[in-house]
Amino acid sequence: MSELKTEHTEVRRTPERGNYDREVINEILDEGIVAHVGLVSRERPVVIPMVYGRDGDTLYLHGSPASRLLRDGRKGAQLCVTVTLLDGLVLARSPLHHSANFRSVVVMGEASLVEDQADKSRILDLITEHVVPGRMTEVRPNTDMELKSTSVISLPIDEASAKIRTGPPVDDDEDYALPNWAGVIPLGISVGEPVPDPRLTEGIETPSHVTDWTR
Amino acid sequence: MSELKTEHTEVRRTPERGNYDREVINEILDEGIVAHVGLVSRERPVVIPMVYGRDGDTLYLHGSPASRLLRDGRKGAQLCVTVTLLDGLVLARSPLHHSANFRSVVVMGEASLVEDQADKSRILDLITEHVVPGRMTEVRPNTDMELKSTSVISLPIDEASAKIRTGPPVDDDEDYALPNWAGVIPLGISVGEPVPDPRLTEGIETPSHVTDWTR
Repeated sequence: MSELKTEHTEVRRTPERGNYDREVINEILDEGIVAHVGLVSRERPVVIPMVYGRDGDTLYLHGSPASRLLRDGRKGAQLCVTVTLLDGLVLARSPLHHSANFRSVVVMGEASLVEDQADKSRILDLITEHVVPGRMTEVRPNTDMELKSTSVISLPIDEASAKIRTGPPVDDDEDYALPNWAGVIPLGISVGEPVPDPRLTEGIETPSHVTDWTR
Repeated sequence: MSELKTEHTEVRRTPERGNYDREVINEILDEGIVAHVGLVSRERPVVIPMVYGRDGDTLYLHGSPASRLLRDGRKGAQLCVTVTLLDGLVLARSPLHHSANFRSVVVMGEASLVEDQADKSRILDLITEHVVPGRMTEVRPNTDMELKSTSVISLPIDEASAKIRTGPPVDDDEDYALPNWAGVIPLGISVGEPVPDPRLTEGIETPSHVTDWTR
C-alpha cells in the first residue's frame, strides 16, 4: 500500500473507489484547473477556489499576501486541497442510486511559504503553464517587484488519495425490471471561441496555445 | 448592505468582485452541480465534493450516516460550502495578471440533521431534481428503509457571499503596447451523447430530461 494513504486520506465511505497510486493522483491534478483549498480560520472551515500547479511531488498555490489563505498558510497551516473532475451524471432507477462519475484528489498537509525569488519565479511560471500550456512563451517575465508582492505556498503531496467512479449505474437487483431509462450523461469542459481583448494591438494573431487549448 | 455579508463571508481580497445579493447567490447555486464542502475534522480542514440542492434560503446535502461529514455535521458542525462555476481563462500580457472568469458562492454556517421522514423524502427528491430536472417523474420513489438509512443535512443560507469576475484581462498600462495576444478562452460544460445502461430493458426510449439536459 502506498505511503500516500494515511488515517486522514484513507477513503472510508466507498473504499473500492479509493486509489493511492501517485501516477493516478498526478494525472488528475494535472488535468484539473481549479482546486478547492480548505483551511481552518478562527476555528471555522473556509474553502476557496484557486488555480494551482504541480512539480514532482509538490503542489503549489499563489496569491497576494493579503489573502486569508496565505496569511494563515504562512504559519504552516494545515491545508486540504481537493480537485474534482466531473465526468458524468449517473442516472439510476431509484433516486438514491443516482451518482456521478468523477475523479477527485485530496491532498492534505502543512503549507510552507516559498521565500527564494528564483524558486518563486519558476513556480509562478509553472502555475501559468499548468492552466495554459505554452503561455510563458508569449508573455513577458515577472518583474522583481511583482515577485516580491506575490506569495507562493508549497504543499508536499505526501498525504493524498484519489477517488474515482466510472461506469453505468448500479441498481438494486429487483429494480432492473423497472421501465425507467437508466444510464450516464457524459460531461466535460466545453471550450468556446477565444475572445480577443478589446485593447489588443492590431495585427496580433491568436497563437496556437490559445486556439488549441483543451482539457 | 445585505445581511448575508458577515465578518466571515465578506470578500476582502478584491471587494469589487463581492456580491451579497440573495438572487445572485441563488442563481449560482442553482447552476452548480458539485459543491466543495469544508469542515473541521480533528482540527484539520477536510474538503469533500458533494451534490446538493436548494430550497428557498436553505441548502441541503445528503449521504450515508457513515460519512465523515455527516458524522460531524450531526453535532451541529460548522460547514463552508463553496460552489464554483468556471466561465473562462483570462490571458493577460503579464503572468500575474492572468486570471479566471468565474462565479463562486460561499455559504457558511452550522449544519442541522433533518429527522422528519417526510421532509427527508421531499429534500432527497429536490437534490435529484437539482442535478437532473425532471428526473423524479421517471424513477420510483424512495422506500421507508432507504429514507431511514440516508442522512440529510440542512444549512441555512444566512452567511453567504458570491464572487464574480467577468470580462477581458486587466493589464498594467505600459503592457498594452506589448506584442502579446491577450483575451479570454470561454469555458463551460460539454454534454456528450447519453450512454444507456448496458442492462437497460429493451424498448425504453431516452426521455427528454436526459436528451435535453444542459447547464
